Amino acid sequence: MTEKNPQEITDRDNALFEAGIKLGALYHQFVGSPLSPDGITSMEKAIQESISAQPFVESVHVEIDKEKVTAELNETFRYTELKGFMLTVKAAIRVNTTRVFVSMKFDEELNYPLMRIDKIEENIE
Amino acid sequence: MTEKNPQEITDRDNALFEAGIKLGALYHQFVGSPLSPDGITSMEKAIQESISAQPFVESVHVEIDKEKVTAELNETFRYTELKGFMLTVKAAIRVNTTRVFVSMKFDEELNYPLMRIDKIEENIE
Amino acid sequence: MTEKNPQEITDRDNALFEAGIKLGALYHQFVGSPLSPDGITSMEKAIQESISAQPFVESVHVEIDKEKVTAELNETFRYTELKGFMLTVKAAIRVNTTRVFVSMKFDEELNYPLMRIDKIEENIE
Amino acid sequence: MTEKNPQEITDRDNALFEAGIKLGALYHQFVGSPLSPDGITSMEKAIQESISAQPFVESVHVEIDKEKVTAELNETFRYTELKGFMLTVKAAIRVNTTRVFVSMKFDEELNYPLMRIDKIEENIE
Repeated sequence: MTEKNPQEITDRDNALFEAGIKLGALYHQFVGSPLSPDGITSMEKAIQESISAQPFVESVHVEIDKEKVTAELNETFRYTELKGFMLTVKAAIRVNTTRVFVSMKFDEELNYPLMRIDKIEENIE
Repeated sequence: MTEKNPQEITDRDNALFEAGIKLGALYHQFVGSPLSPDGITSMEKAIQESISAQPFVESVHVEIDKEKVTAELNETFRYTELKGFMLTVKAAIRVNTTRVFVSMKFDEELNYPLMRIDKIEENIE
Repeated sequence: MTEKNPQEITDRDNALFEAGIKLGALYHQFVGSPLSPDGITSMEKAIQESISAQPFVESVHVEIDKEKVTAELNETFRYTELKGFMLTVKAAIRVNTTRVFVSMKFDEELNYPLMRIDKIEENIE
Repeated sequence: MTEKNPQEITDRDNALFEAGIKLGALYHQFVGSPLSPDGITSMEKAIQESISAQPFVESVHVEIDKEKVTAELNETFRYTELKGFMLTVKAAIRVNTTRVFVSMKFDEELNYPLMRIDKIEENIE
């Protein structure tokens, strides 16, 4: 077994840890918000600007699937809530010279809003 | 003691109950969201449209105090979170012929984001 | 149209408004929490004690349907989230001499976690 | 600049990303919950069991500072909300042969609930 002490923790390690924090935060802060098709655009924008305010975030892009929102509307009350499977999120997080690209997207096969690491860039200027 | 059974519950009762639901929902859904001064406008709009999607809501107006947000910014990370004392909310809720006006506003004396009933209109057309 | 000014707002009005606040808060604070069947008991207890801490609450009873939790488990990851339709909540709220009983329960017909006023007691000692 | 494609993403990368997700989720799900000193134990337990239900979590330990809760109680209403600075969290996350230890703890100097990587163990059996 190989142990790494805090002094051996790299920018890459921290960038991925920070990227996870942002996606976990986004999901658990905003999922559950009352939502109708008319409110999609403002919700996407607010989530993007909110998560962008956090440290190390270079960019966040949030897309809420209008078809899924419409399909989920309660018949009587004509609204639904933001649910994980409606969301596609892409974020770029940078710590010093490392940038990581992560995403959340509903995975049909797993039936799960899967968060994943898409790409890692090291030694950027 | 006087008991009222469900059949004696009035529009006024239901309108006030629904109004409370909306303010409780708003507070516990959105308080805690990462926030910087630049994100205030989009957050206000998203909260308004979100809560407006719920049943019986005629209007919701949300104001986030920019001075308070700025004063709360973390010195190192330059952002804060939406906190109850930054919020002023006014909402109108209607059930049949009753409309109630409720609000949430930080009460300096109580040191508390106080929710209150401002006005009740009955027998509206 | 009949207007009531704040001075004409009754204990009954305030009790119902407060009752709504509690149910709205409960729903939007805790729905979305990661949950497995083993975590049901502690989640029920934490929600009860949390909401009981709020003003005017005499009692809160929370029940999370184990069968529904089990049926919702993700096949790969073996957990789910607390969802509105899993919850049955009963609460008693008192303002001065008025006590109201409210509940939240999934309504199959409406396909909705319906919040309702169950009973109002006035002139209690 | 060096790019890593998904196929070069290591267990260590994924473990740190997953660890971040858990801390971000915990914070934004539970911060804001109404809380009194009596409710601390059940809240700690519920948070632990909730986050433990998520994938890759080996252990989570949550401690809510009773002195801070007591100091924050609203004078009139005798309760407060769970706030980031009251929380100390330690978690161990494992992906295949890599285990990471992460924590959240209020950093007095930064005035911030700092999340950090404490240790990384690779090649565990």
